[in-house]
Amino acid sequence: MRLRKKPWVAAALSTYPNLVIEHPAAKAGHWLKHYGGQSIHVEIGTGRGSFISAMAERHPDVLFVGIETVADVLYDAVQAVQQKQLTNVKLLQFNAFNIDTIFAPGEVDRIYLNFSDPWPKRRHAKRRLSHMQFLQKYRTVLRAAGWIWLKTDNENFFESSLNSFADFGMRLANISLDLHNSSNFTDNIMTEYELRFSTNGHKILRCEASFNTLVPCSDDKPLSSSPLIDLEL
Amino acid sequence: MRLRKKPWVAAALSTYPNLVIEHPAAKAGHWLKHYGGQSIHVEIGTGRGSFISAMAERHPDVLFVGIETVADVLYDAVQAVQQKQLTNVKLLQFNAFNIDTIFAPGEVDRIYLNFSDPWPKRRHAKRRLSHMQFLQKYRTVLRAAGWIWLKTDNENFFESSLNSFADFGMRLANISLDLHNSSNFTDNIMTEYELRFSTNGHKILRCEASFNTLVPCSDDKPLSSSPLIDLEL
Repeated sequence: MRLRKKPWVAAALSTYPNLVIEHPAAKAGHWLKHYGGQSIHVEIGTGRGSFISAMAERHPDVLFVGIETVADVLYDAVQAVQQKQLTNVKLLQFNAFNIDTIFAPGEVDRIYLNFSDPWPKRRHAKRRLSHMQFLQKYRTVLRAAGWIWLKTDNENFFESSLNSFADFGMRLANISLDLHNSSNFTDNIMTEYELRFSTNGHKILRCEASFNTLVPCSDDKPLSSSPLIDLEL
Repeated sequence: MRLRKKPWVAAALSTYPNLVIEHPAAKAGHWLKHYGGQSIHVEIGTGRGSFISAMAERHPDVLFVGIETVADVLYDAVQAVQQKQLTNVKLLQFNAFNIDTIFAPGEVDRIYLNFSDPWPKRRHAKRRLSHMQFLQKYRTVLRAAGWIWLKTDNENFFESSLNSFADFGMRLANISLDLHNSSNFTDNIMTEYELRFSTNGHKILRCEASFNTLVPCSDDKPLSSSPLIDLEL
């Protein structure tokens, strides 16, 4: 979708200094000290903010950082967060490729990739947010036991992401090929995009991935009963 | 599908002692010495034998062992192998759950799970050929660098298999959500079932899985350029 550019948005964003963070690199390593919270969850491509604001409402102990490149879209997210009077959300107009400049190594607990641009052409594969060049950055900022949570309605992007995670040697978990008719994951919060597309009959695909192949995932049994620990690696 | 039982089949199978192996446990650890070949590939649920006979024709240096529980179906596989005069195929009427009694540890190079019974009901999950209780057996008989190659047209079975592999800490590779329209894997040999169902517009799903998370897969770049090796495990 091509957005009509709203010239007043940049100025409007700067009027929320406590919500829209203008110099995020200065916060690297200090996010929780600055803003409070037990852990940091980052949504890359936060869109109009319905997911991040619902999540932040449900998890008041987590600091949510929403990254979005398009200022006009981010402005809508600002409104969504303001409406709920949430203090545990920070929003950045920022390119995720530089995520390792705004977080210290291991500072992030979880990364959400929700309905990312699928960049379907092969020559654009490097732009996909699950491409290896992004994974290298995510690996730096995620703590060892951290997870990426991905969902999409685009089958090719999902296939490409699964293979990218697998080729990178990541652990996968909770893979759903039809999230809304699945018992794998029941705590789903829909994005605005997800609501629209699933209503039209599109299947929603979802998975979790971790750089630490031995880390337990959200619904794991205790590690003592897991076959993971007696694997000869 | 319920098969009409043919009472003469058991006797007929016993007339091919060099193709239908009646006491496979006696061959454990000695398959290649007995029958020749560089490596062993096992198809579990070999059906009417079109896949295994085409594979055996294409790879004369591999010893293919086809396992099938239903004698009547196996008889058709015997005919398929006989017709091509293949000497590098052995067929067993056998239950795969006991696979670790007919192969020595690490004796098998690859296992094919082609269009396995999806056992859709949750209470039957343990019967799925990708269930953890089977994976434990496969891990024993597969050599460290060996792979399971799975394909199916059943989305729920595929999802369940991916999660089973992932939960077991296995490495995944070459995941295809629509094999026949994918560039991930171009060397596909169709089973009789696959031909029928894909012609009807069903998508074919495929993946590879290994118990060794550091092993390269068929189309890997050299390990020196792979991110797998600098992962802190």
